[in-house]
Amino acid sequence: MTTTVPALSVKSADDTFKAVHLERRDLRPDDVRIDISYAGICHSDIHTKREEWGRARFPLTPGHEIVGTVAEVGDQVTGFSVGDTVGVGCFVDSCMECAACKDGEEMFCEQGVIQTYGAKDRHGEITYGGYSQQVVVRDHFVVRVPDSLDAAAATPLLCAGITTYSPLKRHGVTQGTKVGVVGLGGLGHVAVKIAAAMGAEVTVLSRTDAKAEDGKKFGATRYVATAEEGALDELAGSLDLILNTVGSAVDLDSFLGLLTRGGTMVNLGAPEEALEVGAFSLLTMRRAVEGSMVGGLPETQEMLDFCAEHGITATVEVINADQVDEYYDKVVEGDVRYRAVIDVSTIQA
Amino acid sequence: MTTTVPALSVKSADDTFKAVHLERRDLRPDDVRIDISYAGICHSDIHTKREEWGRARFPLTPGHEIVGTVAEVGDQVTGFSVGDTVGVGCFVDSCMECAACKDGEEMFCEQGVIQTYGAKDRHGEITYGGYSQQVVVRDHFVVRVPDSLDAAAATPLLCAGITTYSPLKRHGVTQGTKVGVVGLGGLGHVAVKIAAAMGAEVTVLSRTDAKAEDGKKFGATRYVATAEEGALDELAGSLDLILNTVGSAVDLDSFLGLLTRGGTMVNLGAPEEALEVGAFSLLTMRRAVEGSMVGGLPETQEMLDFCAEHGITATVEVINADQVDEYYDKVVEGDVRYRAVIDVSTIQA
Repeated sequence: MTTTVPALSVKSADDTFKAVHLERRDLRPDDVRIDISYAGICHSDIHTKREEWGRARFPLTPGHEIVGTVAEVGDQVTGFSVGDTVGVGCFVDSCMECAACKDGEEMFCEQGVIQTYGAKDRHGEITYGGYSQQVVVRDHFVVRVPDSLDAAAATPLLCAGITTYSPLKRHGVTQGTKVGVVGLGGLGHVAVKIAAAMGAEVTVLSRTDAKAEDGKKFGATRYVATAEEGALDELAGSLDLILNTVGSAVDLDSFLGLLTRGGTMVNLGAPEEALEVGAFSLLTMRRAVEGSMVGGLPETQEMLDFCAEHGITATVEVINADQVDEYYDKVVEGDVRYRAVIDVSTIQA
Repeated sequence: MTTTVPALSVKSADDTFKAVHLERRDLRPDDVRIDISYAGICHSDIHTKREEWGRARFPLTPGHEIVGTVAEVGDQVTGFSVGDTVGVGCFVDSCMECAACKDGEEMFCEQGVIQTYGAKDRHGEITYGGYSQQVVVRDHFVVRVPDSLDAAAATPLLCAGITTYSPLKRHGVTQGTKVGVVGLGGLGHVAVKIAAAMGAEVTVLSRTDAKAEDGKKFGATRYVATAEEGALDELAGSLDLILNTVGSAVDLDSFLGLLTRGGTMVNLGAPEEALEVGAFSLLTMRRAVEGSMVGGLPETQEMLDFCAEHGITATVEVINADQVDEYYDKVVEGDVRYRAVIDVSTIQA
């Protein structure tokens, strides 16, 4: 027994999105059925759909920034009730028994985390994501979205929010910490808002000054147009932590030079090309380049609660189902201000 | 007034070492005059002499692993007496007032640390290193070498020892920590000894099994010949910390895959080429690549005391002054077991 729900789907890397019907499973005892309201478009959806990160599993329904309303809960579900506003992020299952899962870092599950779309789950079924009107998810992988947050604008927090909150938290960002954010796109603009709410002095490092006004509005104290000759000179050795949110290759050495002694650059993007780092860029001030990938469920809930406390949401463009292809191009061109969110009620299958 | 002392010197990148006379300054109130017994040959001496790291200042007398005996002390020196066995490492002066200096990280002095050779010091004088029979050094930059350590074998600790001790200490290596050491040369063999003394389970990652017996003797519990197909497979995700001691470019991604969740690879070598790291190698388990460069004076003394407590010295070949050119080639070819130390009494100028 399954439920048939409207969704957007592509059949190949160069296909355009079509409205189709998906089957969603009947509830297991620990499942939550969610009527989806909004699904964000993350750059990684585009990388996956276009097979820039390797072979994709088609037909593909992307979407791992999901906000909706609980429609039904399994017998054993105690944390959620029908009508609750909830969210789902980048993954929907894990073994729950390994060290990573026990530490609340389900994304690093030793058995392999089950991604929200395009994955084969532990029951042999293929997962389909949030560009859809309904999804069924194991309760552990569902989080509460505080009612004070606008649902559409909160949607990107499920990936962009946790991806930036996690390294900021891990590195102890607090009052006066000097944080640099490279790139002011979907991830970057949320990073600025969260870091500023933590008390950091935030410097935006963006290629041009096109977004300077927005950067300040999001909470940055300084905005540097990096394409301008010598723009970085005055920042040498001044930043405690840099988040690189740019998905394509950037000149890491030029940014590493901005770090203080012992500072870390956290790389959140995943370009196809290898990152190139000069050995001396790291040696000379005991600097590090670190990877970070979303965050676990406990931290995702903590992030949402933090955002509610500080009134933080993403700055979004709400679009219709028939605009998704167009917005994929706009995301790649950096033309979205600052995250596109699909109103999935507009999917007409 | 100066003192004339025999030393080895080169006039250009392709010159051979000649015995010459150097001038050493008369003592300032905080100076220590040291009759040098031994000077180690560090790979960075070779990089510098051959101008592989940029223009060198000729004539050049390298040597930043120095052990000798105090011959004379300035009026204000209280920490050292004539006859003490002492050491000098990679630098001989710094501002002593900036945050780095106050934190005991003089190598990161904001005014620029003064390197032991080939540098212009804060008085406008050029520094000449340990391939010489005497040196005059500001007392803060002199450390005590415990009498229980063999002087020749302790000499490499002044660079190879502190360079490996510092990241092991900083990352909290203790009983049971799983440490990988890439490369079993001058740095690597000392890293194995120190990590083992800290209680770590040490895995040597060396290209061939030529040094397998030595690796175990130095304290490694496992030795892997990395050039063998599939040799790294069983180590995936098993190491908490890796020190890369190889001076040339290595396949960092293959080693990053050996790290546990949140693990760090510390890069100690400084190849001319950029380090190449796949973004996913870092993302997938929240891994980091970090640079580390020697260590400050307080930590250098701590390292020497630790080595005395655990009976650790380098494994050395003591050579004569006329063998230095030959040993430069041997170091580059990896043919030294495991560090060459010059008996500077053999310099005949």
